[in-house]
Amino acid sequence: MGNQDPTAALLIIGNEILSGRTQDLNLNYIAKELNKQGIRFLETRVIPDHEGTIVEYVNILRKKYDYVFTTGGIGPTHDDITAAAIAKAFKAELERNQKAVERVAGYYKEGELNDARLKMADIPKGGRLIDNPVSSAPGFIIQNVYVMAGVPKIMQAMFDGIKHTLKGGKKMLSEEITVSLSESQIASDLKQLQSKHAKVEIGSYPFMREGKIGLSIVIRTTERDLLDNCLNELRVLLEKY
Amino acid sequence: MGNQDPTAALLIIGNEILSGRTQDLNLNYIAKELNKQGIRFLETRVIPDHEGTIVEYVNILRKKYDYVFTTGGIGPTHDDITAAAIAKAFKAELERNQKAVERVAGYYKEGELNDARLKMADIPKGGRLIDNPVSSAPGFIIQNVYVMAGVPKIMQAMFDGIKHTLKGGKKMLSEEITVSLSESQIASDLKQLQSKHAKVEIGSYPFMREGKIGLSIVIRTTERDLLDNCLNELRVLLEKY
Repeated sequence: MGNQDPTAALLIIGNEILSGRTQDLNLNYIAKELNKQGIRFLETRVIPDHEGTIVEYVNILRKKYDYVFTTGGIGPTHDDITAAAIAKAFKAELERNQKAVERVAGYYKEGELNDARLKMADIPKGGRLIDNPVSSAPGFIIQNVYVMAGVPKIMQAMFDGIKHTLKGGKKMLSEEITVSLSESQIASDLKQLQSKHAKVEIGSYPFMREGKIGLSIVIRTTERDLLDNCLNELRVLLEKY
Repeated sequence: MGNQDPTAALLIIGNEILSGRTQDLNLNYIAKELNKQGIRFLETRVIPDHEGTIVEYVNILRKKYDYVFTTGGIGPTHDDITAAAIAKAFKAELERNQKAVERVAGYYKEGELNDARLKMADIPKGGRLIDNPVSSAPGFIIQNVYVMAGVPKIMQAMFDGIKHTLKGGKKMLSEEITVSLSESQIASDLKQLQSKHAKVEIGSYPFMREGKIGLSIVIRTTERDLLDNCLNELRVLLEKY
């Protein structure tokens, strides 16, 4: 299934996700975007604003995957420690980036550029800025690690600005059929279909809606002809029910 | 901040989350419940339905945390591989559990108990069942690992059934104040407040609503008097603005 395709992981940084205060929406957005680009999104970790954990996990993930995205912790307050932690992970100096200073300075009225705002211009040495068209304070890229804001609207704007620079792979194609069956009714048939179509990934996702059980069957592969063949057989198979 | 309190991690298993097809809702539910019980929820990993990864990560997480919860992959279809992978992680046999067979058998009409349905009664040896009041097929507990369904409604019912058995710690108390300020305006004051109240965790969460910037300030600690003191000082501080 295209194992040479680029791979990616996401590191979600923020106490507010693990306390249940905030429902994360960034994973899903990034997942959809990476899939569109043919990048295999293989892992997400969600961790607190804790320097040691950020350093350790960034170093694990950046060696394991082609791309690592992080969200959260790049604002102006004391609990925003991501940029400093990433610098530490890369053993790079955290320096005040002049381009970032200009962007942040341009966003505020004269006299309003306080220390907290300038802190958002502190970027690990060697980092390249990611535009923030929403509120100016940039994210940054260092090697294969893309450091972005946690607020979904800002994260999305940042991601949309860099996505054309990512090296994509073969696009994952998918088809989905929803039926009013329980998955255990057709599990045996699906298993047979899967073993016949080893290069297609067949997923079975039950759901409940208004008290009724339903099932979505998703088939995925990078090859259009394999997808169509499998889809046709699935349709024939479903006629039995 | 109560470091002897029990800790927990969550392993979300499912291609559908990383493909962007499905928005995960289980993390947030479990986060809220664990917080209510005073269990420190420190990490989540989201991974595909891939046996090697499940085995590796379950073994890492169960040694690192007091409780590990997993969601997803315990249904009747070929892509439901969690129970077998957990058995492998524990080097335990995957066996047909008679109690589980009875529950599953009781749910279906006579003659409808096919192989796929019976597969849901395959539980690692030594596993104790978790009730599934929604659709019968149980989850299970093996040592400190709690294996649950991925469908939110079923997962929640399972979790609600076992939560009274978890050993809780000191409850995390929290207060939240929302203001119409940008975080960089008050970052310096918040930093000072944080350094004065080292045992209280002060989080600053900006948001945008109808194009306007707002800020939620969350203070958290297990001690009511520390919380009240910090909250009072925060209120005084905010009067300046």
